Amino acid sequence: MIEPSLFNILDLLGTVAFAISGALAAMNRRLDLFGIFIIAFVTSIGGGTLRDILLGRNPVTWMENTLYIYLIGVVTFFAIVFRYKLDHLKKSLFLFDTIGLGVFTITGVELGVQNNLDPIISIAIGAMTGTFGGVIRDILCNEIPVIFRKEIYATASIMGGLAFVILYEMGVNTDVIYIVTSLIVIIIRLIVVKYHISLPSFYLSSGEDHQG
Amino acid sequence: MIEPSLFNILDLLGTVAFAISGALAAMNRRLDLFGIFIIAFVTSIGGGTLRDILLGRNPVTWMENTLYIYLIGVVTFFAIVFRYKLDHLKKSLFLFDTIGLGVFTITGVELGVQNNLDPIISIAIGAMTGTFGGVIRDILCNEIPVIFRKEIYATASIMGGLAFVILYEMGVNTDVIYIVTSLIVIIIRLIVVKYHISLPSFYLSSGEDHQG
Amino acid sequence: MIEPSLFNILDLLGTVAFAISGALAAMNRRLDLFGIFIIAFVTSIGGGTLRDILLGRNPVTWMENTLYIYLIGVVTFFAIVFRYKLDHLKKSLFLFDTIGLGVFTITGVELGVQNNLDPIISIAIGAMTGTFGGVIRDILCNEIPVIFRKEIYATASIMGGLAFVILYEMGVNTDVIYIVTSLIVIIIRLIVVKYHISLPSFYLSSGEDHQG
Repeated sequence: MIEPSLFNILDLLGTVAFAISGALAAMNRRLDLFGIFIIAFVTSIGGGTLRDILLGRNPVTWMENTLYIYLIGVVTFFAIVFRYKLDHLKKSLFLFDTIGLGVFTITGVELGVQNNLDPIISIAIGAMTGTFGGVIRDILCNEIPVIFRKEIYATASIMGGLAFVILYEMGVNTDVIYIVTSLIVIIIRLIVVKYHISLPSFYLSSGEDHQG
Repeated sequence: MIEPSLFNILDLLGTVAFAISGALAAMNRRLDLFGIFIIAFVTSIGGGTLRDILLGRNPVTWMENTLYIYLIGVVTFFAIVFRYKLDHLKKSLFLFDTIGLGVFTITGVELGVQNNLDPIISIAIGAMTGTFGGVIRDILCNEIPVIFRKEIYATASIMGGLAFVILYEMGVNTDVIYIVTSLIVIIIRLIVVKYHISLPSFYLSSGEDHQG
Repeated sequence: MIEPSLFNILDLLGTVAFAISGALAAMNRRLDLFGIFIIAFVTSIGGGTLRDILLGRNPVTWMENTLYIYLIGVVTFFAIVFRYKLDHLKKSLFLFDTIGLGVFTITGVELGVQNNLDPIISIAIGAMTGTFGGVIRDILCNEIPVIFRKEIYATASIMGGLAFVILYEMGVNTDVIYIVTSLIVIIIRLIVVKYHISLPSFYLSSGEDHQG
């Protein structure tokens, strides 16, 4: 069985949130029953699998513990049954995607720090862990990957990672860090989308399109 | 040299089948000579590489043994030479893709079981091993990934994986299991496509598109 | 600190070149500040990460040494500031992409040879190392992956890899090999694009489209 630490609880929470976001995206694509489950599964384990492969953790988390796969199965089932309760698809998908982003970011930063990697490397691993599941989901569902929409996405993840390593250096209790930094990611994204804030972009108006 | 076990023969058979499917898809995209070889190669080794990385098998199978890369080269050459014999492209691609799916699924499940992973995890690894090459091929060739077409695809893989672990628990001879379960995947897919069977889908007619 | 060997210098040069190509592609897509950095980062580390994961090098190069991530940050900053100097986007992107391709190909072949892998396997690893970053960049930026454009791309990488293993077998000094073979890749691609050379393609005019 899995140890009931806050780290593991967050990891499971991210798994659930991304599974729901994957199931919603798959239903929106009219996929069949197994298709929905597979997208939910891949979205859910994508970020953690990349994280574990990069860090050489072997076997990867979801392979050691069947709790993940059963949880994804149950969550997907409920997402299908209650799909009309989640009827504001755009909002539901956004919300669960944001929770997953916040929580998985922190698991990535934490494992980077635990492996004595440099803080900036840990932040990068956190950002990859947080965003990878959503990117896979969007590529497989033929959507524009979420990191490219106007909403600040990876930026929120990086801000949370930054807060994590600062609080960690200050010696704050890790459980407090987990909760505070996950919330930072989630709140930044919620505020940004609510108030339509965006970072500057630097368009190349060179009159030449590199696609040719 | 490679040991002439049934497992290795199946692994090579899947390699050949996916190489042909990759070469056909690349020719359909008007790729040049090396482009065809590269798509054939990546389609062919994709599933096994993901399987080996997930399971921490290092180096991955095709890197230890040049037989794979030469085989892919020869097969691709023949696929180019005999491309007009394979002229019902849609049918040929479907057939070889299905063989590859069936055979690679079983190599994934088998290695999961060998590594003492839980049966359901082994089935998931089998499904990823069986489908990954085709997904890469379709993403690179800008097709809708095969797992999203109406035809039951990953479902056939999961059914074969399920049969594998059941027969394994019953103590059936492994060579028999390999053949029976590979055939289950292939036959399910052939029947499903022939009779236009499809699983239920759960479309979200919420009137909101999450793409915005 | 990183050892100032020619190998490491080439690895850093490829990192810089791909970071610029990634930043240019992201600016062309009107991504925001962090979006530009992330695409630059992923393009830059993609090939080396795949190479290190395939070879079981753990942790992967950029995670061991913060030089990579800072370099990518600085280069991206300069690419943004001087974006109008790089105003022939198509040409600039092409040039930096080609340098990255040439240099990373060689790091892949070299590590394959160092690990006592068969020459043909080492060439394949070189080609994957050289092309993977650009493929990720193009998939994320919704471009047709560079390996599919008419220009000979992966072929140049394979030619350079071939030259590497031949010179290596002949006992030529490794530093000479690195420079000569990197240049071979770069020059082949420059010539090919300048003179519009292309390899034969084998279109399947079977009257059937496998997309259905």
